[in-house]
Amino acid sequence: MDMRFEIRVASANDCSEILKLIKELAGFEKQPDAVILSEEELVKSAFSENPWVFVYVAEIENKVVGMALYYYGFSTWKGRSLHLEDLIVNEKYRKLGIGKALMNQVIQVAKSENVERMSWEVLDWNEPAIKFYESLGTEFYKDWWLCRLFKEQLEKL
Amino acid sequence: MDMRFEIRVASANDCSEILKLIKELAGFEKQPDAVILSEEELVKSAFSENPWVFVYVAEIENKVVGMALYYYGFSTWKGRSLHLEDLIVNEKYRKLGIGKALMNQVIQVAKSENVERMSWEVLDWNEPAIKFYESLGTEFYKDWWLCRLFKEQLEKL
Repeated sequence: MDMRFEIRVASANDCSEILKLIKELAGFEKQPDAVILSEEELVKSAFSENPWVFVYVAEIENKVVGMALYYYGFSTWKGRSLHLEDLIVNEKYRKLGIGKALMNQVIQVAKSENVERMSWEVLDWNEPAIKFYESLGTEFYKDWWLCRLFKEQLEKL
Repeated sequence: MDMRFEIRVASANDCSEILKLIKELAGFEKQPDAVILSEEELVKSAFSENPWVFVYVAEIENKVVGMALYYYGFSTWKGRSLHLEDLIVNEKYRKLGIGKALMNQVIQVAKSENVERMSWEVLDWNEPAIKFYESLGTEFYKDWWLCRLFKEQLEKL
């Protein structure tokens, strides 16, 4: 099989494949039911007239095998920033450099958009990822906890 | 002094006071030069025709003494989410319940906007804040590291 891959901007036609990647990963993390994002919401957010969510996909022989999804956040210190929300490569296509290529693509966007800061999160046990991020000159903030309130709980407040 | 406070939606006129709060806190954290956000960028992001950053302020006798700033993010599992970027109360006005009132205001926005998830970050040593967030039913994700690449480094990649 030809393992050459291509990175390109995603289109609305890719949404079902993108969602498949998201759900596969959630299944792998033993939380298959945690994904409530619908194709409709993804299309609306990323491929409407005024998109505010952006996606690149990696393709091998016209098959979507990876994706990176980002949006713009706002830092009270740095102003507009780029937040990489998720980067997924299908299990069968790991170690081909696809993850690095997707990351590099988003870095180029951050540069061309002239943001002062690009941010993302990594699990503290994910050593290969951490090593790669380190090689880029990433600063790690290990003494912060992510806090989340979900709808069910919000409704009680 | 009358310590009754009021929480209200911020306006463009509040930007210099909001920026002052941000800079005071950065000074307190011994990083006074880290704030490069300008009043102009804050106005453009939060008070233009199409704002995408939102701010509430706390006022005592017409003086801005606190603020909460948030924007909308996107979770690949949950879709549109509300991200509380910063919540600051001027040192002299702590322990009056202003922080809790600002937090509660943003929670009400998250509810009325019907988001599936509200998120923010807390320093792991900030016990009073953590206790308060716990009381709300917050889930903490302690095994994630925040990763950041700043412009100077991005330019080398």
